[in-house]
Amino acid sequence: MSIKEQMQMMGVAARDAATAINKATTAQKNDALEAIADAIVTDRDDLMLENEKDLSAARANGITDAMLDRLTFNEIRFNTMIDGLRQVAALNDPVGEIDDMSYRPSGIQVGRMRVPLGVIGVIYESRPNVTIDAASLCLKSGNATILRGGSEAIHSNRALTLCIQTGLKSAQLPENVVQLVPMTDRAAVGELITMKRHVDVIVPRGGISLTERIANEATIPVIKHLDGVCHVYIDDEADRQMATDIAFNAKCNRYAVCNAMETLLVASGVASDVLPDLARMYVGEEVELRGCDETAKILSNVCEVGPATEEDWSTEYVAPVLSIKIVADIDEAIDHINTFGSKHTDTIVTESYSNGRRFLREVDSSSVMVNASPRFSDGFEFGLGAEIGISTDKLHARGPVGLEGLTSQKYVVLGTGQVRQ
Amino acid sequence: MSIKEQMQMMGVAARDAATAINKATTAQKNDALEAIADAIVTDRDDLMLENEKDLSAARANGITDAMLDRLTFNEIRFNTMIDGLRQVAALNDPVGEIDDMSYRPSGIQVGRMRVPLGVIGVIYESRPNVTIDAASLCLKSGNATILRGGSEAIHSNRALTLCIQTGLKSAQLPENVVQLVPMTDRAAVGELITMKRHVDVIVPRGGISLTERIANEATIPVIKHLDGVCHVYIDDEADRQMATDIAFNAKCNRYAVCNAMETLLVASGVASDVLPDLARMYVGEEVELRGCDETAKILSNVCEVGPATEEDWSTEYVAPVLSIKIVADIDEAIDHINTFGSKHTDTIVTESYSNGRRFLREVDSSSVMVNASPRFSDGFEFGLGAEIGISTDKLHARGPVGLEGLTSQKYVVLGTGQVRQ
Repeated sequence: MSIKEQMQMMGVAARDAATAINKATTAQKNDALEAIADAIVTDRDDLMLENEKDLSAARANGITDAMLDRLTFNEIRFNTMIDGLRQVAALNDPVGEIDDMSYRPSGIQVGRMRVPLGVIGVIYESRPNVTIDAASLCLKSGNATILRGGSEAIHSNRALTLCIQTGLKSAQLPENVVQLVPMTDRAAVGELITMKRHVDVIVPRGGISLTERIANEATIPVIKHLDGVCHVYIDDEADRQMATDIAFNAKCNRYAVCNAMETLLVASGVASDVLPDLARMYVGEEVELRGCDETAKILSNVCEVGPATEEDWSTEYVAPVLSIKIVADIDEAIDHINTFGSKHTDTIVTESYSNGRRFLREVDSSSVMVNASPRFSDGFEFGLGAEIGISTDKLHARGPVGLEGLTSQKYVVLGTGQVRQ
Repeated sequence: MSIKEQMQMMGVAARDAATAINKATTAQKNDALEAIADAIVTDRDDLMLENEKDLSAARANGITDAMLDRLTFNEIRFNTMIDGLRQVAALNDPVGEIDDMSYRPSGIQVGRMRVPLGVIGVIYESRPNVTIDAASLCLKSGNATILRGGSEAIHSNRALTLCIQTGLKSAQLPENVVQLVPMTDRAAVGELITMKRHVDVIVPRGGISLTERIANEATIPVIKHLDGVCHVYIDDEADRQMATDIAFNAKCNRYAVCNAMETLLVASGVASDVLPDLARMYVGEEVELRGCDETAKILSNVCEVGPATEEDWSTEYVAPVLSIKIVADIDEAIDHINTFGSKHTDTIVTESYSNGRRFLREVDSSSVMVNASPRFSDGFEFGLGAEIGISTDKLHARGPVGLEGLTSQKYVVLGTGQVRQ
């Protein structure tokens, strides 16, 4: 059988399974999630063995230490997967929720019911725990899933998928609710992202190059997260201490995350007041600073500041590097963010009611904040319970995507025999 | 300048205008809408003159009478455009609405703000009144618009766009908030639907062939309406009179609309009771009937019934033709609809609580109804105030798309200096 035929068969099976999981009760879905957690506990030795196969292949291929680490199962990762499953089981079931039911002059009653998207294709890279993460969220939101993990994690992913299917079976749900693409060929991805009839949406979870490639080649809608070029803007009216705390936290809390700050904007009126202390704190954490001319001037006696080029303003460093720009006022700040940002998360620090209000309205990003670190841009912190990713798209879901983002709403109408005049 | 360069210039101008219209106050947008209505009243003679240019060109090209009618300005159409503008002005402004604001354990307050999509490209066919329709909805929802109408209406569309721009100017809004593609070349459409940097979403308004072509070629998200293969299912537990009324209204109220019924499904237990009278009513309206074998048997002494082929089950006739199928029960009905329907609008007629509840949950269509004619599937009837179309997509907007469907939601966070641990 060709790869195309195999993928089509998986697609047909997923479509059938989607019908079943849409009808499943909340209790059944929760039972399945708990049973998957139990299966991971029971099959632990097997999982370690399969993971070891991936690890030795990876070592033989001279994989980097960082990638090897992402690939490895250990105590903490087992517990995270198991806790994650139980947390998703504890979340409210979004499927079937009805909102805004109201009577119309014709006498019909109109509302909106939350429904699964159908079949979700999830494409990810080396971390095998994404298998459990993605499957649990798609399952709880009533969707069938086709998973395509990184080829270097294929043994681990297969073993985890067996646990998932054991759990589904024990809750009387079809195993095909969650399928893993067994082939590691790239052609399988090409097929997955163009099977319009069988797949409703693609969620890529991985670096920007994976996401961009999928977004360009897919003929199915993609819920995508591109880069996170996040800003903190310190306004003229900022509380100095708060501004320092937030700007430091935004950069130095963690570097390799999409909601870390990449560019600091400072109103010229407060720059010489705020920047020197802040620069010393960054330097203490070995953060490399790049800045505009004015920044370099202000910091000339404090530390080394490389020149920030046009490219810096739109770069996600994901590293201890920060670009700094002095701006005239809030207008220039908003303009800079809307021009160079990536529509992810941006913060203003200000005590000015008017400036805060304008920033919230005019900055065109998925998450816009006043007086809080952009590091809060996260499904758990926002109260979604879990997240499958952070969308930088404008249609459908913006910002952290939880269970609700894996559903849509249809109209439901209740009548008593009304006909149209 | 090449077509590509001209379109790119329009795109850049639209992006700038989008920033301005996002910031515009509700009063300014309403003033603009009222001023456009006034301009149409004032420029009436000019509009008739420009329309006459299109009409004589169309007559010379031997256009059909139906198309000629769609192209023609008359008293009723002027009033419809003017009333439409005033109705949109009277609708609530969706932009900036904040929902679900709540405190999180960290102390931050998280909610969602409704925001414009940005730049919307609207592509439509011969009816020039769509120019006003589409422009007014996009304007009220805070979006910039690039309109591309049918080449046969170019003079009428240009004249209407002048009225729009007069209205925008009088409300101190940039004229480029609404632009019309002045070229009639097809290449301009190709450019419009692939200018990712400048256009956020495409709304095609026209026949299925236009929509399919755009959906296949666009690299920008498309809010699309494909065909409307709508069903009425008469359940075993239906009230006979109500079933007859709804099934008759669903087909015969209007034929050339997407929410008319194309296939009638009847539970076998009630078919011989319900179908003969209903068939006589259809025949009285000269509706051609096509049916399954059992339908033909039941109606053999009543009227002529052609055989319904596999193709009939998925055909949108948009004409006085109806296919009829006898089904064993609600399971077969739901299965038929999910297999052959187009995810538009489907109705069950039943007094059974359980069957009604299952139909609402399990039929995977944009609008699902109990005991009401599918003809109610419409933005006005649903209380949206207006509609730019009916989406048969699953992501973003499903069913009738009003102002809300032209917006999305971003997260807003209000803090008091919180940083992430």
